[in-house]
Amino acid sequence: MMPVHNTQLTPLLFLERSADVFPGKEAICYPRASYTYREMADAATQMARALEASGIAPGDRVAALLPNLPEMLVAHFGVPLRHGVLVSINTRLSSPEVEYILNHSGARMLIVDTELASLIAPIRDNLETVEEIVTVDDTGTPSPIESTSYADFMARGNTDPLPWTVDDEDRTISINYTSGTTGRPKGVMYTHRGAYVNALGEVIHSRHSPESVYLWTLPMFHCNGWCTTWGVTAIGGRHVALRAIDSDDVWKLILAERISHLNAAPTVLTGLANSPEAQKIEWPFTATTAGAPPSPTVISQMSDLGIHLVHMYGLTETYGPHTVCEWQPTWNEESGEMQHRLRARQGVAMLIADPIRVVDDEMNDVPRDGETMGEVVMRGNNVMKGYYADPEATESAFRGGWFHSGDLAVWHADGYIELRDRSKDIIISGGENISTIEVEQAIVSHPAVLEGAVVAVPHEKWGERPKGFVILKPGASVEPEEIIEHVKSQLARFKAPDAIDIVDELPKTSTGKIQKFVLRDKEWAGHEKRIN
Amino acid sequence: MMPVHNTQLTPLLFLERSADVFPGKEAICYPRASYTYREMADAATQMARALEASGIAPGDRVAALLPNLPEMLVAHFGVPLRHGVLVSINTRLSSPEVEYILNHSGARMLIVDTELASLIAPIRDNLETVEEIVTVDDTGTPSPIESTSYADFMARGNTDPLPWTVDDEDRTISINYTSGTTGRPKGVMYTHRGAYVNALGEVIHSRHSPESVYLWTLPMFHCNGWCTTWGVTAIGGRHVALRAIDSDDVWKLILAERISHLNAAPTVLTGLANSPEAQKIEWPFTATTAGAPPSPTVISQMSDLGIHLVHMYGLTETYGPHTVCEWQPTWNEESGEMQHRLRARQGVAMLIADPIRVVDDEMNDVPRDGETMGEVVMRGNNVMKGYYADPEATESAFRGGWFHSGDLAVWHADGYIELRDRSKDIIISGGENISTIEVEQAIVSHPAVLEGAVVAVPHEKWGERPKGFVILKPGASVEPEEIIEHVKSQLARFKAPDAIDIVDELPKTSTGKIQKFVLRDKEWAGHEKRIN
Repeated sequence: MMPVHNTQLTPLLFLERSADVFPGKEAICYPRASYTYREMADAATQMARALEASGIAPGDRVAALLPNLPEMLVAHFGVPLRHGVLVSINTRLSSPEVEYILNHSGARMLIVDTELASLIAPIRDNLETVEEIVTVDDTGTPSPIESTSYADFMARGNTDPLPWTVDDEDRTISINYTSGTTGRPKGVMYTHRGAYVNALGEVIHSRHSPESVYLWTLPMFHCNGWCTTWGVTAIGGRHVALRAIDSDDVWKLILAERISHLNAAPTVLTGLANSPEAQKIEWPFTATTAGAPPSPTVISQMSDLGIHLVHMYGLTETYGPHTVCEWQPTWNEESGEMQHRLRARQGVAMLIADPIRVVDDEMNDVPRDGETMGEVVMRGNNVMKGYYADPEATESAFRGGWFHSGDLAVWHADGYIELRDRSKDIIISGGENISTIEVEQAIVSHPAVLEGAVVAVPHEKWGERPKGFVILKPGASVEPEEIIEHVKSQLARFKAPDAIDIVDELPKTSTGKIQKFVLRDKEWAGHEKRIN
Repeated sequence: MMPVHNTQLTPLLFLERSADVFPGKEAICYPRASYTYREMADAATQMARALEASGIAPGDRVAALLPNLPEMLVAHFGVPLRHGVLVSINTRLSSPEVEYILNHSGARMLIVDTELASLIAPIRDNLETVEEIVTVDDTGTPSPIESTSYADFMARGNTDPLPWTVDDEDRTISINYTSGTTGRPKGVMYTHRGAYVNALGEVIHSRHSPESVYLWTLPMFHCNGWCTTWGVTAIGGRHVALRAIDSDDVWKLILAERISHLNAAPTVLTGLANSPEAQKIEWPFTATTAGAPPSPTVISQMSDLGIHLVHMYGLTETYGPHTVCEWQPTWNEESGEMQHRLRARQGVAMLIADPIRVVDDEMNDVPRDGETMGEVVMRGNNVMKGYYADPEATESAFRGGWFHSGDLAVWHADGYIELRDRSKDIIISGGENISTIEVEQAIVSHPAVLEGAVVAVPHEKWGERPKGFVILKPGASVEPEEIIEHVKSQLARFKAPDAIDIVDELPKTSTGKIQKFVLRDKEWAGHEKRIN
């Protein structure tokens, strides 16, 4: 018999409740197929039963290579309801990368969009464990590979209720592979308990309510949409699904659906702010941003658009966001510019997380002086269970009893952290550390600049020196020297780049992070090592 | 070493975080002593250390007999930080009742207000386990008993940090004794995990934010203030402490402190609405009500005052509220009167609770027809661990794997429950059930009526018949017959009381529940049994 007072924590309970409480309310809004909460729960049940009928056992991995479609949201409940493990794959990976993830996770089934199935065609014969491929036809594209249609797959199941429970809240609910800018991607394991607790944290910090209308600008394959797949379902909000992100289209949806919330990386917000469709929003609207530090410039733009910005920071290993830049009452008295700077800090641990630390190489706290850099380390219920089938990497990441983020930050006197760099991005020039983030923020504060990135380039005398790559705003024109002078007016002169390239685009990950390693690799071609 | 990904859930983490994040922010506002969050955390640490220095070991019970003072809030963290068990005692109990609770819980220490210590003086010699009494002097009243002053007690400790952790989240954090209108009070055990999860639920459903200014109209001894002691601390809101509830004083505080939230039983809200100080509130204000069903009348009054009402329902055994009357989007189209009726339903399980059920004697779900009465049963993380030192009562309450509330409700087609009565309050008249709540709501919808209660009285022919007790609004005048006719115009005629007494006051518990058993006992005096 189930214990009366100790129900295992799982996001499955969230959909059970919303289907009970808001059965007729629209849960997922999408042109091809909308779902009420009752229909969404029925679809998840039918998927769980179809998985069982297809031979998927508890603990088996089921991979999804899907845009932000209703079927992807359903899979976030249907696969766990079968007690399977959802492996959401980044839709912008190459075929060999997808192959690696499918084989490493040992996925027995793949659910894939028919357009994205072109990624699978060349590697189908290399997949060691995938027994069946299910295709979702969202765009009328025929499947290029032998597969079962989503409808035929679902027809194996039915909607007879299953218990929305798990036997052990520490059971793995999903594996999310890191983007793997260096080395092989690693499979980050989330638990039912962690997903439950982190989802509640997202609800609280992004201030969701049953009236939330949430636009899916953040890919669901990224940390399960920072657990918002589960969080917005918990509160009974309305999901607005979205196949692709185009700033102008997003604006049309914001206005047409009266969106109240979205999550997005800062570059997506920059795109929104600079869209010709941009306009001041007349109702309460919250944008939660993470994935890269937002510049004071984009923070100011959000403010001008009437958007309440929640700035968070985390990694795949922390279920997405782990810290939040909590607003301090005393900040109300600061100037607008200072407020934007303060809001650009990564902040403090979420309400549901253990306190964060910034440590030196010996795991001692660095001084809270806003200057000394150290590594951000985390612990708590929203830290991963470990890397799938990789005990060595897990042990290394958890050394000293804390998860090591690889991110370098300073710790301010008030306990707020401010990221300075990824360990691998920091520039060491003549023995001095230069934070690429700091230089980038100075660059984008120039009025002609839309976006910028800074990387280390080799230098005979100094070892490394910063170099900038800049996209200008449409119609703007400026010489690199003027931008360099602008940076020198804001930072110690040695931090200013020696050179800036004006470019048309920057290499980016699917979640909008600039891939600095691509820029750096080009600059270091011909050198034997990547650090001087 | 602590696990990296699995921190035991405890409300202690909430104060740790708020002291880190909002150290200088006012945590507790009170004329005699205000605390910042840093000071509140330091006080809790000092209390935990003082408890240790006083010989209190982990697992020991520490009782508190205190109004809603800052020290009571501090004890909600200081006692658990010592891994002790907080026994909060209702301040309106009689000396023998307090004696029973202190002896039954085996409390080793009692922290008591010097005014309330008069309750202890006559029973001091009967206390079997209380080794030391600590007195808090809030009003300048000298302690009538031998005791240690709060200052001397606290001086045994210091503020050297202790870890804000527990070894096992299933550890008991508090014991709350039921009001025990029949039989001996029972000690309801809460766990650290349950308190953590329920507190987050309160934050989400009452929509707390770090800007919350929470007025302590609800006694903290009642279900630990429905876990709001922990919840408002979690979000970093501001607690406004309050020694006694007087409607006019409450209005002064609402305006002076710009209160945003309070919790209160419906009778307290009735008092607020009928205070000469009542006025429309011009900022977002949420009143969360539970403890008794609010009538559509008081719901309408709250709406007129600009107060957003959150209606919840629960019991001591469910950490306070367990259900919430979630607003349905379709209700926006209903008439105002119908909206008030819908909002008077007890609703659905909270986001963090398991689904609620209404069952017959064989534990089968009753039909969702809005007519068939059954017993409300609950399960989940916000159901008590059990009754302290009372395995038989625990087993009986948990029969069939569900907690039996003893409350009778109907289940509506939309899954919302609506209370009809406590099992012991229901009137059985000529074989027909009459819900006293239903009759009371009809009575208070009469414009001259302030409050009303209905109980069963013996009747030769029908076995039982309803009788009403009514308080009129100031200056109002009406004959009982007119109220009876009013009830007949709204309900089946057999449900209308045969008699109504106009009275000056009604017997109430400290939390504002009308003590129907007092009224009933008087009417049944001389009869051999209490059911006919």
